[in-house]
Amino acid sequence: MNIISNCKIDLPDWVIPLLEEREEPLATISQRMQLAIDLSAENVRRDTGGPFAAVVVNEATSELVSVGLNLVATAGVSSAHAEIVALTLAQVAHGDWDLSGAGPLQLVTTCEPCAMCFGAVPWSGVKSLICGARKKDAEAAGFDEGDKPDGWIRSLQRRGITVQCRVLRSEAALVLENYGKEGGTIYNASQGK
Amino acid sequence: MNIISNCKIDLPDWVIPLLEEREEPLATISQRMQLAIDLSAENVRRDTGGPFAAVVVNEATSELVSVGLNLVATAGVSSAHAEIVALTLAQVAHGDWDLSGAGPLQLVTTCEPCAMCFGAVPWSGVKSLICGARKKDAEAAGFDEGDKPDGWIRSLQRRGITVQCRVLRSEAALVLENYGKEGGTIYNASQGK
Repeated sequence: MNIISNCKIDLPDWVIPLLEEREEPLATISQRMQLAIDLSAENVRRDTGGPFAAVVVNEATSELVSVGLNLVATAGVSSAHAEIVALTLAQVAHGDWDLSGAGPLQLVTTCEPCAMCFGAVPWSGVKSLICGARKKDAEAAGFDEGDKPDGWIRSLQRRGITVQCRVLRSEAALVLENYGKEGGTIYNASQGK
Repeated sequence: MNIISNCKIDLPDWVIPLLEEREEPLATISQRMQLAIDLSAENVRRDTGGPFAAVVVNEATSELVSVGLNLVATAGVSSAHAEIVALTLAQVAHGDWDLSGAGPLQLVTTCEPCAMCFGAVPWSGVKSLICGARKKDAEAAGFDEGDKPDGWIRSLQRRGITVQCRVLRSEAALVLENYGKEGGTIYNASQGK
């Protein structure tokens, strides 16, 4: 028997230096989204993952708490979507799975969450979700986004999470569009084949 | 800036020795579910996580590929549900995010997947999902299971994944019931509070 007992996910080496060089504030949701979009484009340019990124920001202090990138193909883990990575690294930084104790935290993602990431958001303790591109933008680039419940935004709101979509949508969607045009790997479900 | 750039999830130390000691085959879905139920009960008894476990088995060879436990409270990661852990460790073992190339793999979980894990199943490449307890059993123990789309089973089937629920349901539900009765930690969403 050869059962694996641990796994590790690393952000690419370029991420921390890029963050350290930045001087733009994160006072507005547009500034936060712009950082996420820049990270998504850089992830493609560096060939370190898919065209999606996310950041977790403290809404009260505008402090950056964590960043996430889509690392599915590079880490070899299908759940390594940008949102899951960002939430997990925020939880590691906080030392607890429940981010509600870390201030009012906001998850800013370059694309509307897929079915998995939609389900993951309430478990994390963030209080706010900000999305850039829409599901149809991801689908236009070739990605399967899965089946979310009808009224997924209301579902999150019922759990006390505010949701705002289409923030810098065209800028976020352009990264997806370019990725699709340039023949980037589309790591969709195998559809049982 | 103090941004965390990696995370690591480990199965508890008792898991591999327990698996090595077992002699029961995994030829039937009941035998596979029984292993998952035993792991869920042991996870509670050892105080290493929540009352949920999952295993990934090769349907063709009956070989055990990976195991997962709910490690939310112990790892401090809200997405460390049993299904996500089992799928991730199977992907690490296979060396690729797409398990469809690792044989016909089956995810056997002691409870119907939550909203997040439902969304994660198609991305993994497994061909079959076997569930024990139902959503209402988890809810009766105090757990929030999130909002899955209506017809979630058909949604998976449309993606080529066969689904069978209520396998050893009462045995699986008993682990949840006992956990609830004994005042086990209920690591639910903070509901925005």
